[in-house]
Amino acid sequence: MPDTSCTLDVRVRYAETDPMGVLHHSRYAVFLEMGRTELLRKNGVNYRDLEAAGVLFVVTHLEVRFRSPARYDDVLAVTTRLERVSTARIDHVYAITDRATGRLIAEAATTLACVDTDGRVQAIPADLRGRMGWSGPTR
Amino acid sequence: MPDTSCTLDVRVRYAETDPMGVLHHSRYAVFLEMGRTELLRKNGVNYRDLEAAGVLFVVTHLEVRFRSPARYDDVLAVTTRLERVSTARIDHVYAITDRATGRLIAEAATTLACVDTDGRVQAIPADLRGRMGWSGPTR
Amino acid sequence: MPDTSCTLDVRVRYAETDPMGVLHHSRYAVFLEMGRTELLRKNGVNYRDLEAAGVLFVVTHLEVRFRSPARYDDVLAVTTRLERVSTARIDHVYAITDRATGRLIAEAATTLACVDTDGRVQAIPADLRGRMGWSGPTR
Amino acid sequence: MPDTSCTLDVRVRYAETDPMGVLHHSRYAVFLEMGRTELLRKNGVNYRDLEAAGVLFVVTHLEVRFRSPARYDDVLAVTTRLERVSTARIDHVYAITDRATGRLIAEAATTLACVDTDGRVQAIPADLRGRMGWSGPTR
Repeated sequence: MPDTSCTLDVRVRYAETDPMGVLHHSRYAVFLEMGRTELLRKNGVNYRDLEAAGVLFVVTHLEVRFRSPARYDDVLAVTTRLERVSTARIDHVYAITDRATGRLIAEAATTLACVDTDGRVQAIPADLRGRMGWSGPTR
Repeated sequence: MPDTSCTLDVRVRYAETDPMGVLHHSRYAVFLEMGRTELLRKNGVNYRDLEAAGVLFVVTHLEVRFRSPARYDDVLAVTTRLERVSTARIDHVYAITDRATGRLIAEAATTLACVDTDGRVQAIPADLRGRMGWSGPTR
Repeated sequence: MPDTSCTLDVRVRYAETDPMGVLHHSRYAVFLEMGRTELLRKNGVNYRDLEAAGVLFVVTHLEVRFRSPARYDDVLAVTTRLERVSTARIDHVYAITDRATGRLIAEAATTLACVDTDGRVQAIPADLRGRMGWSGPTR
Repeated sequence: MPDTSCTLDVRVRYAETDPMGVLHHSRYAVFLEMGRTELLRKNGVNYRDLEAAGVLFVVTHLEVRFRSPARYDDVLAVTTRLERVSTARIDHVYAITDRATGRLIAEAATTLACVDTDGRVQAIPADLRGRMGWSGPTR
């Protein structure tokens, strides 16, 4: 039975913080991407192999609500949850919390589209869909 | 009469593109930030001076719709428009297009909160509000 | 007669500065890469076209001496000079100064190797060599 | 007895790789910085606390030799070794290898200068020097 969520710890790097001493807001998207990679890995899928097989995913929508600042050297818990899978799209939702205090740092959502190497939208391969643990209807 | 929108050209750097050969989605937030800085500059405000005066802005909400990929060395036109100013918050909306073809690359929206050096929300100073060209009601 | 040096202005972005309020040292390599791209462009060469033609360049050596900090919104003048071209390698040297004050910010040097799409070192194509303006002996 | 070297594993992120599919050369400096932070941590020193106490370190020299490319999702072992401590400067040397194969990815060296919050060079505090495990003469 595949996992539909996972939590990855990420330590905030000095180079990722800004003059206010906090994690720059543009960096959150990188953490979300790491969360998605980790969720795939947990289900035995390597995104690098997918790319080599011509199955690419591009982000078509990103939304982040920044709730509380994160600082250099903080360890953040990035929780990624598969929200919905349709023919060619995948929605994830995320919560980022401070590992030490449990404080909510950010909430986020993304939509990915499955494309081929020329960037054309294609259906998500059936076996990949199965490994992602999506048992609901195809929309 | 202050400007409430501006367009800034930004050339996509090699280091900003990913293995798919396109501008990585996390980089758009950086371009939006540059657009906001430019809009302030057009109205005679330097964000660096604001920070030195204890008037900081943090991004509390970010949303991006990615419409079409941008590639290395493409010149993008980042149009930033002031959408709304409330007591302590500023909303901007953005359109990013390809300078050469006019193709829409992305649409985006952000909300900023005005904070002091300790990160506490504070009212946007009246003179700054005036220079941003916001003539509507305070909400 | 091709140019063997050029100067490109780059404005320091907020997202590139760190908690000390200065341009993070890892970002200089990106500015140097922009300088090299610009020098090629001045000589009618587009690095994107080179890549498409299977002529890639990888950095094999990087050295930077950081002389003085650069701050958010500073405009830096990145001067790139072609230093030497051998069969498969190109050396550049750089000086980065503050546009407003002329102060020296950093000095740098890089070595690039010409590789094919599989990463194997290959000779720099003769016509490219000519367009880069290298009239000295091949070493 | 303090440690004068340590090894930190870092997984290459998608956002850190370029159109050639390899870790962008500008990112190595970030990994070196993480290695230095980790070496301090091993000796009970938190760089964040140092900054709060007005003891800052700026990179004055960086040199990297890139030996072999690293790819997305590779786990790299970043070995950091304290090379020399003088009154106000610290030299480190580094080796980055591929965790899975042992292949050498890069070698590097940095020099840091100890500065105060105004950026003026200051002597490294004696207790910090002790915790870094430098038993040699002060130069």
